This record gives sequence, C-alpha cells and structure tokens, in this order.
Amino acid sequence: MVNQRLFEIDEWKIKTNKFLKEHKRLQESLTSLANGYMGIRGNFEEKYSGDSHQGTYFAGVWFPDKTRVGWWKNGYPEYFGKVINAMNFIGIDVYVDGEKVDLYQHSIESFDLELDMKEGILRRSAAIRIQDKTVRIRSERFLSLAVEQLCAIHYEAECLTGEAEITLVPYLDGNVANEDANFREQFWQEKEAGADSHCGHLVAKTAENPFGTPCFTVSAAMANVTDGFVSESFHTSGMYAENRYVYQLKPGTKASLEKLIIVTTSRDFQETELLSKGRELLSDILRRGYEEEKQRHIDKWNERWAKADIEIKGDDELQQGIRYSIFQLFSTYYGADPRLNIGPKGFTGEKYGGAAYWDTEAYAVPVYLAAADPEVTRNLLLYRYHHLEAAKRNAAKLGLKGALYPMVTFTGDECHNEWEITFEEIHRNGAICWAICNYVNYTGDRGYIEEYGIDVLVEISRFWADRVHYSKRNNKYMIHGVTGPNEYENNVNNNWYTNLIAAWTLEYTLENLENIPAAKRSQLNVREEETEAWKDIVQKMYFPYSEELNIFIQHDTFLDKELQTADQLDPNERPLYQNWSWDKILRSSFIKQADVLQGIYLFNDRFTLEEKRRNFEFYEPMTVHESSLSPSVHAVLAAELHMEKKALELYKRTARLDLDNYNHDTEEGLHITSMTGSWLAIVQGFAGMRAANETLSFAPFLPKEWDSYSFNINYRGRLIHIMAAETSVVFELLKGDPLYITVYQNPILLNGRYEGRMADE
Amino acid sequence: MVNQRLFEIDEWKIKTNKFLKEHKRLQESLTSLANGYMGIRGNFEEKYSGDSHQGTYFAGVWFPDKTRVGWWKNGYPEYFGKVINAMNFIGIDVYVDGEKVDLYQHSIESFDLELDMKEGILRRSAAIRIQDKTVRIRSERFLSLAVEQLCAIHYEAECLTGEAEITLVPYLDGNVANEDANFREQFWQEKEAGADSHCGHLVAKTAENPFGTPCFTVSAAMANVTDGFVSESFHTSGMYAENRYVYQLKPGTKASLEKLIIVTTSRDFQETELLSKGRELLSDILRRGYEEEKQRHIDKWNERWAKADIEIKGDDELQQGIRYSIFQLFSTYYGADPRLNIGPKGFTGEKYGGAAYWDTEAYAVPVYLAAADPEVTRNLLLYRYHHLEAAKRNAAKLGLKGALYPMVTFTGDECHNEWEITFEEIHRNGAICWAICNYVNYTGDRGYIEEYGIDVLVEISRFWADRVHYSKRNNKYMIHGVTGPNEYENNVNNNWYTNLIAAWTLEYTLENLENIPAAKRSQLNVREEETEAWKDIVQKMYFPYSEELNIFIQHDTFLDKELQTADQLDPNERPLYQNWSWDKILRSSFIKQADVLQGIYLFNDRFTLEEKRRNFEFYEPMTVHESSLSPSVHAVLAAELHMEKKALELYKRTARLDLDNYNHDTEEGLHITSMTGSWLAIVQGFAGMRAANETLSFAPFLPKEWDSYSFNINYRGRLIHIMAAETSVVFELLKGDPLYITVYQNPILLNGRYEGRMADE
Repeated sequence: MVNQRLFEIDEWKIKTNKFLKEHKRLQESLTSLANGYMGIRGNFEEKYSGDSHQGTYFAGVWFPDKTRVGWWKNGYPEYFGKVINAMNFIGIDVYVDGEKVDLYQHSIESFDLELDMKEGILRRSAAIRIQDKTVRIRSERFLSLAVEQLCAIHYEAECLTGEAEITLVPYLDGNVANEDANFREQFWQEKEAGADSHCGHLVAKTAENPFGTPCFTVSAAMANVTDGFVSESFHTSGMYAENRYVYQLKPGTKASLEKLIIVTTSRDFQETELLSKGRELLSDILRRGYEEEKQRHIDKWNERWAKADIEIKGDDELQQGIRYSIFQLFSTYYGADPRLNIGPKGFTGEKYGGAAYWDTEAYAVPVYLAAADPEVTRNLLLYRYHHLEAAKRNAAKLGLKGALYPMVTFTGDECHNEWEITFEEIHRNGAICWAICNYVNYTGDRGYIEEYGIDVLVEISRFWADRVHYSKRNNKYMIHGVTGPNEYENNVNNNWYTNLIAAWTLEYTLENLENIPAAKRSQLNVREEETEAWKDIVQKMYFPYSEELNIFIQHDTFLDKELQTADQLDPNERPLYQNWSWDKILRSSFIKQADVLQGIYLFNDRFTLEEKRRNFEFYEPMTVHESSLSPSVHAVLAAELHMEKKALELYKRTARLDLDNYNHDTEEGLHITSMTGSWLAIVQGFAGMRAANETLSFAPFLPKEWDSYSFNINYRGRLIHIMAAETSVVFELLKGDPLYITVYQNPILLNGRYEGRMADE
Repeated sequence: MVNQRLFEIDEWKIKTNKFLKEHKRLQESLTSLANGYMGIRGNFEEKYSGDSHQGTYFAGVWFPDKTRVGWWKNGYPEYFGKVINAMNFIGIDVYVDGEKVDLYQHSIESFDLELDMKEGILRRSAAIRIQDKTVRIRSERFLSLAVEQLCAIHYEAECLTGEAEITLVPYLDGNVANEDANFREQFWQEKEAGADSHCGHLVAKTAENPFGTPCFTVSAAMANVTDGFVSESFHTSGMYAENRYVYQLKPGTKASLEKLIIVTTSRDFQETELLSKGRELLSDILRRGYEEEKQRHIDKWNERWAKADIEIKGDDELQQGIRYSIFQLFSTYYGADPRLNIGPKGFTGEKYGGAAYWDTEAYAVPVYLAAADPEVTRNLLLYRYHHLEAAKRNAAKLGLKGALYPMVTFTGDECHNEWEITFEEIHRNGAICWAICNYVNYTGDRGYIEEYGIDVLVEISRFWADRVHYSKRNNKYMIHGVTGPNEYENNVNNNWYTNLIAAWTLEYTLENLENIPAAKRSQLNVREEETEAWKDIVQKMYFPYSEELNIFIQHDTFLDKELQTADQLDPNERPLYQNWSWDKILRSSFIKQADVLQGIYLFNDRFTLEEKRRNFEFYEPMTVHESSLSPSVHAVLAAELHMEKKALELYKRTARLDLDNYNHDTEEGLHITSMTGSWLAIVQGFAGMRAANETLSFAPFLPKEWDSYSFNINYRGRLIHIMAAETSVVFELLKGDPLYITVYQNPILLNGRYEGRMADE
C-alpha cells in the first residue's frame, strides 16, 4: 500500500538527506509551501534541467481555458477554469567560476532537505561538485503568514575546497505555462519588467479571453540584500528580470543573499498601483529585516498550532501524518478572504481546475469549525452565498429552477464538462446546506441563517423540488439520472445518498422558514404552494431499501450487480481507474468512495448503531477507497463501531496518503482537501466527538498500538484540551466559560479539568 | 416540419432558378455528387467569397485527428478518425476584362441549377453583371461511374452584351482544411505540383501522425481541352497549380473549356506511380472525349435505375424524395470495394468521423440486398470480416473477450470517445450478426457463413457471453451499463433491444455451428463449455416486461419515469438536442429513435401483430425521431399495422428529410445512411415485403392519396417488378426462373405476370 516514502519519520519535520532525481516531482509536491495567498511547489532556487514541475500559484488568479470535449452537450460550460501556474519568483541562478550550477547535471555530494511544519519554513543545503571544486549552498525560505504578499529567501554559498568566484543571479521569470493547457496557450503576457542594482520587478497580466471572465494582473517586486558586487542588472521584454552579484570567495567566507519578493495582484489593488503598493510593502520589510519577519511568521504558526495541534504518542508515523495534514490544510486556507476556497490540490499542482469542490462543505468545514475560529468557516459559507446568482444561472442552464452550485468553480459558474459530473453529481448541492446547518449548530450563530443562509437554502430547495419527479406507479418522488459520491457509477436512479440529502434539505429549509422574521420571509417570496410541494416531497421521497438484507440500497439496481468484494481483486489491477476500462468500472460493484455510508456519516444521529453496522459490513468490503476522501469517513464509522483494526488501517491511509504516495499520484500535487480526513478520523473517529443538537459529546477509545492522543477543540468561545490514554480520558477547559458536555453519554459540566475512565472495548 | 425547401418539385431533378446566398451551404449539400470513389459538395467552380463549405472527399482517405476530451478514460481510442477534406480540383477562376468573377459579390441576373438524378449530372448557368457587361457562364460536371477516378467538367462563358476578354483559370488547390480539425491542424502536405500549357498536376500527402495509422497520397492530373489562348501556366509550392486561357469574345462566340481530372491515390497504386497512372487514364479519356465519357457514365446510371427505381404516382414530392434517396445512397456506395463502407454523411460533409456505423448493417443492407446485386452486400459484410482482428483488439481494450465492432471506424479500430457510446452502445455488435443472417437468408449464399461469417459470429458471441453477468437474486443473465439505439438515454440496465440482439446472436451462432464442416469447426476452437454457457444465457436472458401494460420495457427503470408524449412538447423546443440540456433529455421519456420497436422491426416474424400494435402504441407517441434513422422503422411498422396516416407522415419525414431540411442541419451534409429509410418504408412498409425463412412475401397497401407505386426487386437471380394500384397488385417476373412468393399470405408461383386484388383496409 505504501508506495513511495521519500521522507524520514519525524514528529515536526519532513526531512531527508537523499536526493532522488527520479522522484523530483514527488519531492516538489511534498515540500510545497503556501500561506493562503500564494503557494509554491518545493522547486529548487537553482537551475534544474531534469524532469521537474515548476509551480507558483496565486489564490484567486485563474484563467478560463478553452475546452474541447468529444461531443458538446447543451448546458456545458464554455470554458474550464484553471488554477494557473504563474511567474517563478524564487529563482536564483548560481555560477561557480562562470559555470552555471545545474542540480540535475552536477554531482551532489551531500544533500539535506527539510520542511519544518512547526515554523512553516523550508530549508535545504547541498554540496555540489563543479569542475574541481565543491561548493555548498544553503537556502531557507518561507511564505509569510504575517505579510501574506511576502516570500523571503535566505541564500548562501561557500566553497569547501578553497577559493572560487561565485555569481548569484536572483531573477523573476514569467515564462511559465500550465502543463495541462488545452491548446498550449500562453496564459500570461508581460506588462512591465525592470531591474537595477538591488531591485527588480515584473508585472504580468493574464491574456484576454472570449468568455468575459476577468483578467488578472500580478506584480512581483524584488529586493536583494547582499554585500556582493553588483555586476549587472538586466531585463528583457520576454517577461524576465534579474540582478547579478559576484562574490570572490576565500576559505571561510560565504556569498550571502536575502531575496525578498512582494507579490501584489489586481484582486486587491488598482492595476496601475500594483508595483508602488508592492514597493511600499517591501520597504516595511526591509526596515524590519529578514530575521524579524521570520519570527513574525513563526509566531503566527505557533498561534495556529496552539489551537489545532494533535499529538499521538506511540506512533511517530501517524504523528507526522496528522501534523502534515493540518500544516498543508492551513497553508492552503485559513479564512482570511471569503472570495477564496480550498482547491483539491491547493497551491501544489494544477491537475484539477477550479478553486472549490463539495469537499469544502463535506470535509473541511467540520475541521475548521473545531480547529480554528468561527470566522474561518463563516467565510467559507459566505463564499457560496456570494455565488448564489451564479448558482441560479447554472440551474437555469439545465432548464431547472432554483440554484445548482457547481461541481468545480472559481466564480460560482460551473467550469467542468463531463455530463455525468456537471449535470448529475448534484448531491453537491446538499452539502452546501449541510455545511450551513453544521455551522449554525456548532457555533450557535443563528443570525447567519437569517442574514445569508436562508437565501441559499430556499434556492437549493427550489432546485430539488424541480429536479425530483413524481412516479405515479410508485406514488413516490424519485431522482433519476444522478452520480452519487461513488463516481464509479454514473447516471443511476434514486441514489440513496442524493435522495437523502435532497429530502433533508427541504426539511431543514421548511424548519428554518418557520423561524425567519416576517420581513425576510416576505422578501424570499416563498409561496405556500411551494412549501406544500416541499412537504409532499419530504413525505414521499423514495429510498431504495432491501428488506432481505436490511440495508439501504445505493441506487435502484445496485443489487442486480455481480456483488464482489475488494479482497477478490488482483492487487496489480489497483487502482482500478488506472487499470480497468471505464465500462468495467461502472458495471462492477466496487465503490470509489463512501456513498450510503457518506449519508450515514453526515446524518449520524439519525441512524441506529445496528443500521450503521449492517450497512458498513455490506458496503465497506466493496469499497476501494480510490478517492482520497473515502478512507476517513469509513475510519470514523469503524471507530464508532469499535472495529479497531479497520479504523486504524483506514486512518493510516488517510493520514499518510501523500507522505507515502498511496494513490501513486502525489507527484501531481497534494490531496489538500483530503488532508481533513486525518483530523476527522482522530477527533470524530477515535475520540467520538459529535455536536448534534448543539451539544458537544465524546466517546473516546484508544487504539491498542498507541500510548495516547490529545488535541484541542474550539467551541463557542472555549478552548478545550482532550487527552485519551490507556486508562483515562481527560478534558480540560483551557479558555472560556464552563460548559456541559457529554462523555460516553454522561452529562458533565466541564469547569477546569475532568478526568474519567477510558471505556472498555 | 418542412424547414427549408430550396429546390422545386420534379420527378427526376433537383432544380431551382433562385440563388439564395443565405442557404449556400444547404444548396451545396443537396447538390453533392459522388461515385463511390470520391465526392464533391455542390460548390461552384468560380470564386465565391461568401459563406460556403468547399468540400472534396476521397473514399478511404482519412486522418487520425488528435482528440481531447474532458477527462480521459481508460479504453478510449487515441484519435478520432476523420473524413478529410481534400484538394479542390473543380475550381475555375473566371476573369472578365481582367476582373475576377465572384458569385458572392457580383450581381446575378439569372440563375439555373439542376442536379439530374437520372444521369448523375450537375448543371448550372448564371448571367453575371460585371462592370458594364453581362456574361453568361454554364457548367456541367459529373463524377464518372465508368471511370471512377474521373471528374469531368464542361465550362462555357459568353458575353451577352457584346465583346469581352474572358480569362478562364482551371486550377488544383490543396489548401483546404477540415472545419472540425481539433487543433486547426493542416492534414495535407505537398508532394509535387506542376503545370504546363494544357496540363497540371498536384500530388499531396497526409501529414505524419503519431498513432501509426497509414498516410495517404493523392494525385490529381488535370487536362484542359480548349481553343483559348494559352496565356500562362503556373504552380506554387503552396499546393497550387493552374492553367490560364484567354478568349476574346465577340457576340455569338463562347469561351469553352473541358476540364478533365483524374484522381489516383496510394490506396490503389504505388506512391511513386500515382501521377503516371493518372496520366495514362487521362490519355484514355482524352482519346474518347468528353461526350463519349458522359454517355458511358449515363449508361451506368441507367443500369442502376433499371434495377432499383421506385415510381410513386400521385405524389410528386415523394416521387422526388425516393429517387433522391436512392441516387445519393448509390452515389456513396455501390459495392465496388470491400475496403469501403457508407459514412453517415457520405462525401457531402465532415461532421461525423469514421466511415462505418451500425447504420450500414441495420438500414443499408436490406436495401442493397433487394435493389442491387448480391455482391454489393457481400462486400459490406467482408468489410467487417476484414476488421475482425481489430474488433478483438477493441474488446480486449475493455478487458472483454471476443470481438467488439467499433461504433465509428475506418480500420476496425474504434475512433470515437464518449464513454456512453464507445463502451456502452454495444448493440451495434448484434447488427453485424443480423446482417450476416439477413444476407444468407435473402441470397441463399450459405457458403458465406462457412467461409467468413461464422468467424465473426463466434467472436461476437464470445463478447456477449463475457459482457453479460449473472444476477443471482434474479437467476437471470443481465446486461448492465449500455446505451440502446435510443441515445437519449445512457448507461441503462437491461435495454430490451440489446438483450434481445445479444441472446439472438448466441442462438444464431449455436445454430450455425451445428452445420459447419468439422474442419472449420475445429479451427474455430469453440469449446463445449463455451457453447453450454451460451445456451444457458439464451435460456436465462432477462427481458424487462410489464405484465400490467403488456409491453416490453425499454430498460429496467423506464416505467419509473414521468411518461410524457411528444405532442405535449412545445414545438419551439424541438429538436430537443438543440434546446434542452443533456440532463433533461436523459431523464425525460422522449425517445430519439426506435428502441423496443427497432427490435420488433429487425425480428419481425417473432412477434404477433397484437404485440407489435401494443408496443407501437406505447412507444411511438414518446418518440421524437430526432435521429434520421428513426422514422423509417416506424413507417414500416405503422404500414404493417395499417395505420395509414401515421405511416405516411413518417414516410414523408424520411423521404424528404434533406430536401426539406427537417432536422435543420442538412447544410452540414446529407444524411446518407438515412436515405435507406425511404426505400424501406415503401418496400417493407407499404408493399409489406418480407423475406423471412427464405420466402419472399408481400402484403401491399396503397395510401389513399396515391394513384400507384411500383418498384423492382432483385432476388436470387430474378428481377421482379411490383406494382400496387388502387384495386390491383401486379407482380411481374422480368428476369430469371419462376419462383414461389406469397401475396397476402397466399402462395403464388410467379412465372411471368400475376395480378391480384388490392386488399381492403
């Protein structure tokens, strides 16, 4: 299962002293840095002529790539919105006695690479043999949490074999392209470039497009702090600017350079003032200096960890895995900007288009609710609220009423075109409502419903009411032609999960409409015949059920399949999507990710333990977990069912998905939204945390292999520390007023410290 | 329903004296000429700078266009094979006193255009106002049936207003592109071009491709017969060659030019000898002269019409429609080359890729069997036989045994990539077997089965046996995940038609295996466990059936839909595929083309009249006939059920589909394979011809609006004339031995002429 493990086990670091050229892309993905505003893959500063994926990404800066699909279908979006690879601003070319260092060609005598998750810093050193000399370089870089526009690099070179002339060339290079551009189109055009002695700048703008989506201008202002001899400054009209510094090194001396870059974009400033704003920010940074900026950045990471760290004692691999997950998730998004969301690959690759998937609502919201301040989640919700008009356009394109939130989007407009996903994977709409419910239930912020949430709920309810149809011969409402969370089946009828979340949406909307102030209600213009229709649908929704097996059926004809379990599969045929034809996948009983179990997971308090067990035992064995979102949901349920071995197996898969490259694709980027799974599996799974009916409850159990685990939870102004050890569970109120919680179903007033017994198996 | 009718009603001609620039593409499609070897749209010889679609196509000359689909799926073909637009060889530029005639810009004072279907000749004349003069041009052209490589054009110009200097510039131009090229790629590259006094040539080759499919070289050798003054001959490296002739016209004199072009391709000759072979052929033509060649061509068309003409008295619109259908179908394919097949647009456009669809087996074979010699059909069958290895590759790509014939192909390899079609529309495989059965039953040529057919039957049976699955809880074999003939539903389970044709294939293969010589049988290596499995599947195949409605069900969950009939649709929303989202189409009950009824049509003798009626009455009202293949099948069944009005309505739609542009898309090319429908509707529909169990039978009825209809049938060496009039039906043996036929179920020994009474309603 573990495919490649490049990095050593360490509780706070991702580190290695091996340089494996054949896994360069994987190394780059895993050592990505981001700060919510921008991100860079773990590319080297120096030239690297081997296979590599240079990647820099700015949040909210995207391009509508022309699409081409087999046969166009009415209702398809006109473009595919892509996360775009933007200018390389980290580059520093290094010359030794006039010869350019190439880390692919030159021999590397020693190598150290570490990503420090506690501090959010990437460090690297290497001794390079070039001509007859050995030169050691060191680099340290971070994307600041204190000044989001800042990337800071500290770079050094020394000659280990005596004297050498070193030239350092920090540069800005806009000649980058998306590997997946449909027509090999160049997305960027130069606006301005310049360089002189210690400064350089590059301003680039995305190309005009025929779809009416906005262009973006990005400016990078670079300042270099060094005592090197200024040899030449240079820029070309080919989107390139550099400075050049020469150092005559003697034994014991070093060439040292601080490269500071401020990136400003037209998302925040007028296009004309981008550079001047960048230079203003840069002068603040120069005043404070590199070391002070670094400390400010580290402090911010410390604040985050204080709220969200999870400790696992007794399993260092999983300790590393959970911290890596939290680190990369928070690097991608920490709620600073409601115009942003959490792309599936964050800032680490460009395989998926769009910036928002249903992953956010279904997987990320529960994590942010408990591991960060409520504003973070609120901003994720507002993202969708601001896209309501676009979601109405999406529904109208399909000839349907109400709002259909897109599968993939930047602006709220759908930008994915496979009919079985775009038109059919509509359960995503339900997750938007579920996230609202989840937020309000967790935070108690009912005002959100009145001010924003109800608008979304009503329009999504209108969609469901139009999308169902009434089957006369069954006297039931049905939903035909959908793709459920299990994307290994398409165009099925009455997907149990979709029907469930649709009916629940209507129910939840009706319930909330009751409590809405009259003024708002009249503004929503919900007619009585609408609510009557919704009630009828709630009452008469069809849910496929097998009396014989006593389980919910995934969709109408699932049980007619040849039902096989995943252990019957030849391991060489995994993952199926890489080895089987689509035809074979669709017809098989193998499930890509939780479907019925996803529904049971989301609406956990509506099902008995016995129902959970029967459905888990029926579906999990057929599940191949080839979506990175799958294992965590199963881990949570398995933990609830006290299937310790299964829970732990699935947890490992979640927690080290990228670190061990389980899915054979981490070289394309990290599975950012799946990073939530490790947290969910611990907190909701092993610790059994639930928040149903506005009550925080826990039912911890400890896998035998572990000594203990502990974590913090933020809940309605409190910070609570939870620790589960072999014989005891400890709850400690670190901040905030006393609070009733339940532990193993016993109500407890938490005021200070509470210690109880760990439950027996 | 009639959308645009550009041409006048005439029993043997398509003609008009109106020149409608806004319908130029439609005019071009409708006046296309072809001779099975090559074809050209009805483009003008002269310059036309307005919107137009210049199109020349050579049979079997294609290009593997790079594809790009949303998300790639395992098993997809690597390229989309395209009919490619090839060199324009008809072009003649005309100058009047040095000014180039442009039929879009210059004013046209009179215009006549006619396609003579009896003779296969396109004629056009126009009086053009240019400067202060009026010049009349006339052109006549044909693609010879006698020498398939020959295109001959007779061109004239005269000045109606006195004197003028006319320059005629016949040319060859390889600068053409497919409008649908995925990456705007240029498919052609020049090999050689040249011109001198009365000759010119152009040799072009298709570009190299990365898929390993063959390149094609095409040579056009041009000779011009004229008494014009040779002014200049000219060629460029830009795939262009011309001759130039100047004429000083006085009143009463004409500039006259015969442009003769021989096209040879690397499909038939060595690449190096293409031009010399072309010149050889050209010298034969020059020896015989234009007029003699024209007569030889006309004679060939006369032979075809003698075997296949259908006369309808009392309805000139339909008379024109049926002849147009036969004319265009036979222009596309007349069995000369088993490497060729019948593309859906023939030589008239490039919207569809590939050269062969299941249309050939399901719709064209029955026509060619009765309207031409058996060799024509045999060649269509051999086409698939020669592709058997490729069909095995296609199945293997999906991880399945046996052979899966492609949905779209040139070489037998699949070249279409929409999963719901490529992987799922597998009923096409059954049609291949059905055509073999049909051919053998009609011609009595059992040797075909032994020599070729059984190989195909066995491999297709192996496919079906692997593609079904056994559903334990139903004790039935099922076929999940298919698209039936009704492409307005995708990925359905147990499509009745697909299950039917699959089970029938196994049954028919088993039956034929019994009678195969032992040597052949052992060579086929069919194991007993295989045939046992096939028998089991035949016995236990699942066929969805409604006891309540007493009908076959289109697929498992069809009856759960909201069942609506097409008359409830807003006419403005038709055709649905242009106006509805794919989502809405899939979920609706509207049927694109016959599905259950297609099965009843193909296996007509297996169903009672009552079954036919019930299923027709249930399904036809939901059918929108938005596939051009649909109306004919319904027309045949409606005629059998004596639903005269319905039969006639559907017949009209078939017979004048392109002439009246019913589907709003004839400008893209003609619906060549649907041309078969007019013939089927008359012969199988109104005349009730069947050939089940090797017996020819008829049950004619005459629509009240008609006076009579008559046609010829070729059957096992006989030529039979059938005439149905108000009170009588007449059968006349024009050629061959006496034969038992049945008329209204009465056996009759046909020997000379038989006259009976027309049946009462």
